[in-house]
Amino acid sequence: MSESELAREIFAQPEALERFRAQEGARTPELGAGLAARRPAGVMIAARGSSDHAAVYAKYLLGARAAMPVALAAPSLFTIYERAPRLASWVVLAISQSGASPDVVRVVASAREQGAATVAFTDRLDSALAAAAEHVVPLHLGGERAVAATGSFTTTLYALGHLVAGFRGEEELALARVPELASHALAVQPAARALASTLAEHASCAVIGRGFGFPVALEWALKLKELAGVFAEPFSAADYRHGPIALASAGAPAITIELAGPARGDVRRLGRELLERGARLVRASDEASADLRIPEADEWLAPIPAAIVGQLFAFWLARARGRDPDFPAGLRKVTRTL
Amino acid sequence: MSESELAREIFAQPEALERFRAQEGARTPELGAGLAARRPAGVMIAARGSSDHAAVYAKYLLGARAAMPVALAAPSLFTIYERAPRLASWVVLAISQSGASPDVVRVVASAREQGAATVAFTDRLDSALAAAAEHVVPLHLGGERAVAATGSFTTTLYALGHLVAGFRGEEELALARVPELASHALAVQPAARALASTLAEHASCAVIGRGFGFPVALEWALKLKELAGVFAEPFSAADYRHGPIALASAGAPAITIELAGPARGDVRRLGRELLERGARLVRASDEASADLRIPEADEWLAPIPAAIVGQLFAFWLARARGRDPDFPAGLRKVTRTL
Repeated sequence: MSESELAREIFAQPEALERFRAQEGARTPELGAGLAARRPAGVMIAARGSSDHAAVYAKYLLGARAAMPVALAAPSLFTIYERAPRLASWVVLAISQSGASPDVVRVVASAREQGAATVAFTDRLDSALAAAAEHVVPLHLGGERAVAATGSFTTTLYALGHLVAGFRGEEELALARVPELASHALAVQPAARALASTLAEHASCAVIGRGFGFPVALEWALKLKELAGVFAEPFSAADYRHGPIALASAGAPAITIELAGPARGDVRRLGRELLERGARLVRASDEASADLRIPEADEWLAPIPAAIVGQLFAFWLARARGRDPDFPAGLRKVTRTL
Repeated sequence: MSESELAREIFAQPEALERFRAQEGARTPELGAGLAARRPAGVMIAARGSSDHAAVYAKYLLGARAAMPVALAAPSLFTIYERAPRLASWVVLAISQSGASPDVVRVVASAREQGAATVAFTDRLDSALAAAAEHVVPLHLGGERAVAATGSFTTTLYALGHLVAGFRGEEELALARVPELASHALAVQPAARALASTLAEHASCAVIGRGFGFPVALEWALKLKELAGVFAEPFSAADYRHGPIALASAGAPAITIELAGPARGDVRRLGRELLERGARLVRASDEASADLRIPEADEWLAPIPAAIVGQLFAFWLARARGRDPDFPAGLRKVTRTL
């Protein structure tokens, strides 16, 4: 896989995380503390694609660790419906690697005009998004080249972790260990490759998580779609029982994201139900019995190494299905949505 | 289809909507006006399954027509993480036909304890949810029997329409026409049946909407999964271009929900792109050229007849695929999630 730009970027993530920590590890928690001091009524997050999954992560992070209600923006309200919600007492976060998505820029511009505190997470300091936001958290990736987002996703989660640590007013020592966790995650490669070869014939699958595992399920499913061309649909374990479980008996594979923490029991119970229905279960967890091993970590940080495990699995599933993960069918790196 | 309970409930929707209007058509807007008078910082909505799609509808309705920021609750924060977001200055809506989902009840109980205004939309006045909420909007369905939600979904949208009319302080004359729109929607049946027979062999499809068409796409996809056993995945047109479009060339059908309004242009453009990629496009709109015809309606009310069209299509696709829509594989009517 040495000639693959995508593989290079997957393997560069420990270094990217380390770089973020070195350059922004002090400033980002300070920014978070400043936001908390404004006592916002809520936090709204604007994002698209993988960045939207980072937004869902932020929803659990701000909720479970800072008791903040979080709304995901519907950018079309700001653009095609031209009716921005009232956000004067809110904090608005925007996430976009390229900073070029016009609808995300519009959410930030409107919120700032209304008096909201606005923060952009982006790799491009020269972007329209960076110009629109009051504060910018730079990702320091130096431009991601592969079409599928990898380092921009994990670095954004890491940046959010730093921001929320400051918002809580706590120094989170566990943040320092994350680059190392990312290195450990890369060790899944041989297992991911072997597993991929046994699953190559399946054209669809469910990816199931809950709590902090839910944004991980969203991101795995997107990578499996983009890279491997698999109809991978993400679900919260809770919602899956409300209908989609009807598809489970069809024999398609189901992947369960079992992060250590209070949500694990529920995901596991659902996994057992799926096995009883004859599903082909693929378990991702930090246990030795897992099909795909995620390094042990505090639950709120585990999504970072877990995302990397998913990237490697999707990479090898793409190869096993005869696709080139560096050139996903019909995708562009930057999508401009109005 | 005379022996089908589900069909009976699908066809009873005009009457159910009429009944809601007769019994709650005055009181629900008053309740909405009372909520607006509190000048809430935001609206949080707790729901699962089809009800969660009604919540997404409410997000567009409250956003586009009342400039309110809306957050969808992550119930696991209240239950398994035991960390409720601060909601004292918020309005919290809960949607559950049975009123029995413990996690939705917990969101409401916690919010009410914090001083938030709480409203339950439910068919069961004797439920835990109705007891937990300060205000109840009864759906007057007299108990939905088929496993798949039909009238409880459309009546909830209708109830939300009344609530938001009052929140805006306007009398919305268009609301009175909705039962008639629902009747017109039922006329799609022969077309839905004929189309279903040509699509029976496809095991997966994308369902694409935007703006008010997005919750419709969510609900169609769930019905196609539950009833017809099709891997139907819903997308916002905007997000679809950020990755999932990679799957379009695979030849699977794509359904576009093209409601009249400012979002239609974008969904149409995506439909044309999909056609160029060789997708089998199924267009749902109010135009004569549509594959599935939705009655003409104001955009904010169109999701009600559009949902009914989707129910009929899913019903006939189930039959065409040799499934009994009255007994979806492995589903229960009431799902209790903690």
